[in-house]
Amino acid sequence: MEEPRDRFCDECGVFAVVGHPEASHLAYLGLHGLQHRGQESAGIVTAHEARIFAFRRLGLVGEIFSPQVLERLPGSSAIGHVRYSTAGGNHISNAQPLVIHYSRGSLAVAHNGNLTNALTLREELEGSGAIFQSTSDTEVLVHLVARSGADIVDAVSHALFRARGSYSILLMNQDLVIAARDPRGIRPLCLGRLGDAYVLSSESASFDLMGATFERDIQPGEILVLTHDGRALSLLPFPQRPHKLCLFEYVYFARPDSVLDGVSVYHARKRMGQRLAREHPVDADLVIPIPDSGTGAAIGFAEQSGLPFEMGLIRSHYVGRTFIEPKQSIRNFGVSLKLSACRAVLEGRKVVIVDDSLVRGTTARKIVENLRRAGAKEVHLRLASPPVKHSCRFGIDTPTDAELIANQFTIEQLSEHLGVDSLGYLSLDGLLSAVGGHRFCTACFSGDYPVEFQDEGKKLRLRFEGL
Amino acid sequence: MEEPRDRFCDECGVFAVVGHPEASHLAYLGLHGLQHRGQESAGIVTAHEARIFAFRRLGLVGEIFSPQVLERLPGSSAIGHVRYSTAGGNHISNAQPLVIHYSRGSLAVAHNGNLTNALTLREELEGSGAIFQSTSDTEVLVHLVARSGADIVDAVSHALFRARGSYSILLMNQDLVIAARDPRGIRPLCLGRLGDAYVLSSESASFDLMGATFERDIQPGEILVLTHDGRALSLLPFPQRPHKLCLFEYVYFARPDSVLDGVSVYHARKRMGQRLAREHPVDADLVIPIPDSGTGAAIGFAEQSGLPFEMGLIRSHYVGRTFIEPKQSIRNFGVSLKLSACRAVLEGRKVVIVDDSLVRGTTARKIVENLRRAGAKEVHLRLASPPVKHSCRFGIDTPTDAELIANQFTIEQLSEHLGVDSLGYLSLDGLLSAVGGHRFCTACFSGDYPVEFQDEGKKLRLRFEGL
Amino acid sequence: MEEPRDRFCDECGVFAVVGHPEASHLAYLGLHGLQHRGQESAGIVTAHEARIFAFRRLGLVGEIFSPQVLERLPGSSAIGHVRYSTAGGNHISNAQPLVIHYSRGSLAVAHNGNLTNALTLREELEGSGAIFQSTSDTEVLVHLVARSGADIVDAVSHALFRARGSYSILLMNQDLVIAARDPRGIRPLCLGRLGDAYVLSSESASFDLMGATFERDIQPGEILVLTHDGRALSLLPFPQRPHKLCLFEYVYFARPDSVLDGVSVYHARKRMGQRLAREHPVDADLVIPIPDSGTGAAIGFAEQSGLPFEMGLIRSHYVGRTFIEPKQSIRNFGVSLKLSACRAVLEGRKVVIVDDSLVRGTTARKIVENLRRAGAKEVHLRLASPPVKHSCRFGIDTPTDAELIANQFTIEQLSEHLGVDSLGYLSLDGLLSAVGGHRFCTACFSGDYPVEFQDEGKKLRLRFEGL
Amino acid sequence: MEEPRDRFCDECGVFAVVGHPEASHLAYLGLHGLQHRGQESAGIVTAHEARIFAFRRLGLVGEIFSPQVLERLPGSSAIGHVRYSTAGGNHISNAQPLVIHYSRGSLAVAHNGNLTNALTLREELEGSGAIFQSTSDTEVLVHLVARSGADIVDAVSHALFRARGSYSILLMNQDLVIAARDPRGIRPLCLGRLGDAYVLSSESASFDLMGATFERDIQPGEILVLTHDGRALSLLPFPQRPHKLCLFEYVYFARPDSVLDGVSVYHARKRMGQRLAREHPVDADLVIPIPDSGTGAAIGFAEQSGLPFEMGLIRSHYVGRTFIEPKQSIRNFGVSLKLSACRAVLEGRKVVIVDDSLVRGTTARKIVENLRRAGAKEVHLRLASPPVKHSCRFGIDTPTDAELIANQFTIEQLSEHLGVDSLGYLSLDGLLSAVGGHRFCTACFSGDYPVEFQDEGKKLRLRFEGL
Repeated sequence: MEEPRDRFCDECGVFAVVGHPEASHLAYLGLHGLQHRGQESAGIVTAHEARIFAFRRLGLVGEIFSPQVLERLPGSSAIGHVRYSTAGGNHISNAQPLVIHYSRGSLAVAHNGNLTNALTLREELEGSGAIFQSTSDTEVLVHLVARSGADIVDAVSHALFRARGSYSILLMNQDLVIAARDPRGIRPLCLGRLGDAYVLSSESASFDLMGATFERDIQPGEILVLTHDGRALSLLPFPQRPHKLCLFEYVYFARPDSVLDGVSVYHARKRMGQRLAREHPVDADLVIPIPDSGTGAAIGFAEQSGLPFEMGLIRSHYVGRTFIEPKQSIRNFGVSLKLSACRAVLEGRKVVIVDDSLVRGTTARKIVENLRRAGAKEVHLRLASPPVKHSCRFGIDTPTDAELIANQFTIEQLSEHLGVDSLGYLSLDGLLSAVGGHRFCTACFSGDYPVEFQDEGKKLRLRFEGL
Repeated sequence: MEEPRDRFCDECGVFAVVGHPEASHLAYLGLHGLQHRGQESAGIVTAHEARIFAFRRLGLVGEIFSPQVLERLPGSSAIGHVRYSTAGGNHISNAQPLVIHYSRGSLAVAHNGNLTNALTLREELEGSGAIFQSTSDTEVLVHLVARSGADIVDAVSHALFRARGSYSILLMNQDLVIAARDPRGIRPLCLGRLGDAYVLSSESASFDLMGATFERDIQPGEILVLTHDGRALSLLPFPQRPHKLCLFEYVYFARPDSVLDGVSVYHARKRMGQRLAREHPVDADLVIPIPDSGTGAAIGFAEQSGLPFEMGLIRSHYVGRTFIEPKQSIRNFGVSLKLSACRAVLEGRKVVIVDDSLVRGTTARKIVENLRRAGAKEVHLRLASPPVKHSCRFGIDTPTDAELIANQFTIEQLSEHLGVDSLGYLSLDGLLSAVGGHRFCTACFSGDYPVEFQDEGKKLRLRFEGL
Repeated sequence: MEEPRDRFCDECGVFAVVGHPEASHLAYLGLHGLQHRGQESAGIVTAHEARIFAFRRLGLVGEIFSPQVLERLPGSSAIGHVRYSTAGGNHISNAQPLVIHYSRGSLAVAHNGNLTNALTLREELEGSGAIFQSTSDTEVLVHLVARSGADIVDAVSHALFRARGSYSILLMNQDLVIAARDPRGIRPLCLGRLGDAYVLSSESASFDLMGATFERDIQPGEILVLTHDGRALSLLPFPQRPHKLCLFEYVYFARPDSVLDGVSVYHARKRMGQRLAREHPVDADLVIPIPDSGTGAAIGFAEQSGLPFEMGLIRSHYVGRTFIEPKQSIRNFGVSLKLSACRAVLEGRKVVIVDDSLVRGTTARKIVENLRRAGAKEVHLRLASPPVKHSCRFGIDTPTDAELIANQFTIEQLSEHLGVDSLGYLSLDGLLSAVGGHRFCTACFSGDYPVEFQDEGKKLRLRFEGL
Repeated sequence: MEEPRDRFCDECGVFAVVGHPEASHLAYLGLHGLQHRGQESAGIVTAHEARIFAFRRLGLVGEIFSPQVLERLPGSSAIGHVRYSTAGGNHISNAQPLVIHYSRGSLAVAHNGNLTNALTLREELEGSGAIFQSTSDTEVLVHLVARSGADIVDAVSHALFRARGSYSILLMNQDLVIAARDPRGIRPLCLGRLGDAYVLSSESASFDLMGATFERDIQPGEILVLTHDGRALSLLPFPQRPHKLCLFEYVYFARPDSVLDGVSVYHARKRMGQRLAREHPVDADLVIPIPDSGTGAAIGFAEQSGLPFEMGLIRSHYVGRTFIEPKQSIRNFGVSLKLSACRAVLEGRKVVIVDDSLVRGTTARKIVENLRRAGAKEVHLRLASPPVKHSCRFGIDTPTDAELIANQFTIEQLSEHLGVDSLGYLSLDGLLSAVGGHRFCTACFSGDYPVEFQDEGKKLRLRFEGL
């Protein structure tokens, strides 16, 4: 069994509905559209007649929610959450939305992001008698809300004033839903309408699925209050900060059919590929993507280079979460099963393969070997982002710096390690120009963290297995 | 769907091991032996090298724990908990042992009982900023522990000083296990040895299963501290109170092979039946128990009355938790399937049926009808306890006073309602003499609650569905 | 993994409904009442508008059938089957009712029993081109039916004329249900009425559960034809044979609330105990049954001997099909968990324990050890049947002769092996007098097989794992 | 509940290993690679020391087989089968490989195809006393084998002489594996090597996955005998027939990375798209595939037409087999969830969408509506095959002629019905030229069935629900 890390950070997706008779049902659909952001657990909480109804479980949205469960989640407002599957074990006590009861009633919270002073705040809270039941930084936030004693909107503002780091957060009590985004806007959050109802989502693609119309992005630093009976109030209580939306959302994380802070993910990826073809041209016969992560950039690369775009790697739709590894030396069977190399396309050809990024490099290496075995004469790897050299501190689950392969090898060594004839990374400038500007967090590429990390050296001692 | 009640109370079982290399495994075995005390959820928490490992799930002990799960619960000390299946829905957020993190580290708690001032304490705690994530009174206790700021033993003592009501409680941190029983000893708790290791259990029968030897009951008001490395310290910090062990443990709840506070449950039940035969003799052909709840008393009744003891109702071992009800008028099929009436024993006979108690009377009525259909000429119902007229406030899940059938009918009306030829309840004096004294809580029969109920009129507003 | 045996024999239960609008539902209830006769698989087949609908699965009746499945089994006639769980593996290809299609349409068959010339017939059939898809002797029978070419009633008669051994069998096609019992009546089968509908069952207890009235036993050698529209025809085509109902049905297999061929199983067991007390009296303090198999005989033993009847072994209702064995030396934990010894009853006492029979003796040995550990001063084992020395050839799954403990030891050696102070078996005469006559198969006790075994030395080579 | 059809036909995949110590494991891997050919059930049968071991279940390969199950399938030869999920219900009695026992021992059979004289043969067999336990035509074949009485190779040849229609079939007994392909080669089957072992598969892609090398296609009409100890014998007993491999394998069914009878599926699809662009050019802004079925042809179309290739429809990887449909009017949610339209690509653009074929047209209509809602200005549908106008009789599950949309509308009506601005089908000549010749079955497009259908008007009366 793998040893899980003691950490706060996870990638997640959040969704809310305010003022629709089928709120839990819509939240279920919205979470379906955010499933790529988290496959560990999912939850929906609704508010109905001054009471809170919650259902959270480990598993995929489609497995967790049955018509019977949705029936048991009445009310016209709902918030939902999906959570990333971490390496070492599933922690149901971290499943969200978190529901608590405090002096002013009940409160449900769904959080995407990571507080960089969570452990510091936690120690302070513990010092004055607080108890914690999870390793989640969201629990830190609700303690701050509960302790403020003030009206819910003020209490949330006060709590967020204390928080550092990234948060796109949804809170709900018996009266209202509050959506907030950290002052740098590190994680995305947007607002839509479905008839008279409001919908909120980590990504705009959820709105398209259900026929809702995209209204606008929640602004960095904005606190938006939506009452269950339809009133809206927008606050901007924080000092203004430079915007720093996570660049990796465009590189890999978001759906291609989402538009984040005004930039289409699909087009951004295509531009990355085009730029990559200019930065690292190659004399080859064809361009193939590593599907689906490299598809957008590969289309751009092919278009720019004039090389034919081909599907030389076939992605299987039947590979579940586990399969039985062959005992004997059937090399790279798992990777082959997911992505099989098409000999008819590859044999005797000089191939450019395009992927979004390179983290540990283990899969890329196996893919290259499979391409060679299927007859590729030359394999040139092009990556639509710069070398990943720094761990994320804002909610994406990344290996430590030392585990990142870009920190272990020079480009030449890496080419050899991966078995490619050439290797080209998109430059940070190239990436930024593809996304259209400089208002992004580039920390995982540049090490330039936009928020100070107060918890340096702190460590959580608690470990939860299972529930 | 049934509407669940907002309440604190549940019956449960607790078990602990201190100082054994297979602690989680023994806890699993111990909980198997306490399964009758709670079928909703089960959990085990272990302490290993200054860390806490927890696994809690909805379901039966045998379903929840696999060898893989037990492997992931290392350490030489463990506490475990089983929880009662409530009518309206399973609340995983109430599953125990509860694990929290606070200023002095991690703390796991398993609690059997019910605090009668939990809502009052909860309001006070919320007033000073505490948050709650369940409806459990155990969460109130750990807040009190965490806020004390003192050393763990002092903190627990202080918390228990504030608590009213019933508790047999086990706490564990990285250094020690603490067992405590409320000053009246309302719920049972006992201590045993397995080699050098200590074991603690709600009932002594758990010890027999694993070959551990019964050492002694934890005294009412005792706080017993056992360090992981084998030291023991017993404290009696509370003012002495009259002992008030729950009488219903003997009537119905405990296993017949347990000995509680020195009294064998088996023998107590047999004496109840003997006394019942003296108090309510009947001219009949044979005595049959309602298995298994009435078996002990029926043996005693038959012995005393000289009537033959027969198994006129056959209990099935294959009836699961659900089955499909016949659509048409196959009367009482569910009850027949669980307890089938044996025509060969009953036909043309005058029958005494013995059960432990009568709560709502719905099942008894169906059984009587089945006995008549199987040819019984006369049916005389004898109950090995007095009329149940008052709800429990100390941790057993009972209907409201109004729902209790003894409050709705006179004995004569009740005979007619149940369709019996005669009906006899054991007197309270008779029950007490069968159990051997007056040091018991008789509240559900007499209304004489040994602890004041501070939470009168208070109501929890929070509702959790599922997880 | 255990090695499964290549064999035809299994114990089973069969049930049929003819002429009731809720036929599949009643069959489901009837099979619930026969669940003790087979826990490996269950199936129901219905006939509706000239078509056959079938559902068979591995598992318990309550797990297999949902309201949805029963909906998909339309029609007013149904036959059902439960099958015993064999040691070495579940064979879904052997699940029944078997459904086949042949020249005259579809045919469903449910069979309890074992043909003693099945392999001989099989070889003959294979020799003329037949194929087999299971190891079941039932498949042999349907081949004979299909090859006859005659009208279904004649074809069944012809097939049964060829068959040797035991069968209580139900067949159904689009027009009728046929029930047949072998000429010696080795396995039981009875007829009841539920309003205008007919019901057929291996045991009468199924009728009581659903409020049906027992009509009569199917006679040995009888072929009863019931058309879906309500006509009945009884044939007795076979030469008359001495009746030989399986004695072990009374000793162990049937439910106590069943009446087989006019004899109440409950009363037979009680008389066995009474006779056993006369044959093997003992100076002891009390009598305890091994529940539930020994309960009836123990009541009889106590009554006859005048010794008190006590429940010194407590049977758990929460032990599932598996649990995790303790690694270290917690002796007999599995047995303790199922049957825990009650120290308060046993300590310092001279105890008679009564069970129905002794096959391999492994469990009895553990129970005796547990009784001693719980303080029993003397342990006297009394068995309500003679030594089991011969394998069954008529459908009960028994060990080989060599594995039967009665063939391995003298009574004295066996007493020592089991650790008891004395051991007494009921004589065969005693058993027969308890059951009321000599019209029974005594083969497992006496070696006196009522039917010749044609298949001696033959062996099936086919092995099916799983489905 | 849907009404299932009474029919023989299903698409399937077959795989075999001969002479490898990990035969069951390799079969498991091979079936993984054929999973797209059948998701209803899967099975593996092995031969070991003159015995047959079988495991078949409903479900996906990855769900059915665990390491424990593979352990229980010993031996160095194995055959496996995957089966298509039919509309009306899963029929476990049809799961394959079929295993039977007959006069010459045991025989396992895995069959892809459909016999066009199965019912005729079945009637004949039933007339001489045969029984059937499934609706499968494979059972007809094994009866013919069993009745021949000859040596296995002769018996198989004789049986296949009687069979009409399509079959790619694998048979195994204790000594050898036989692979056979019908004289027209309607279904594919090929041979590979893995070290010294032989592997056989419906598609060559399975070989690539496990590092086996493709050797050759089994020839139409070939019977290949491979003994477990490594000898091979090829027979061509049938009169030669024109080759008629199923054209739809190239259009839709086979994996793009397979090569069937010497033609790369990937390249064939790309050529279909190129030809389609020439046959039905369109003035548009971009070309998008309906993933994944239209991807190959769309790449060809884009290349030929010079229009940009874009991923305007995003395929989700998290859509399970079911989800809860929105109650209210969220239009086409199911289709949106699987294939979401990317507004950023589509808005204001003239779009060519390319798919492989059009059967019922219901999904295409919803996709077009979604594209319009996402802002597409014009939508031009191009199909890489001719109108599908005739049901398949050779093993692919197709609707009746009347249900096929090409039989219900003219091209113009169909354009309007689907809501497209233009509609273009690839001509049959175009398709044949893309695949490279005329040696293909074109029946579903042309109605020109290469084999006569003897069973016209015959109907199976048997119905199996579930097992």
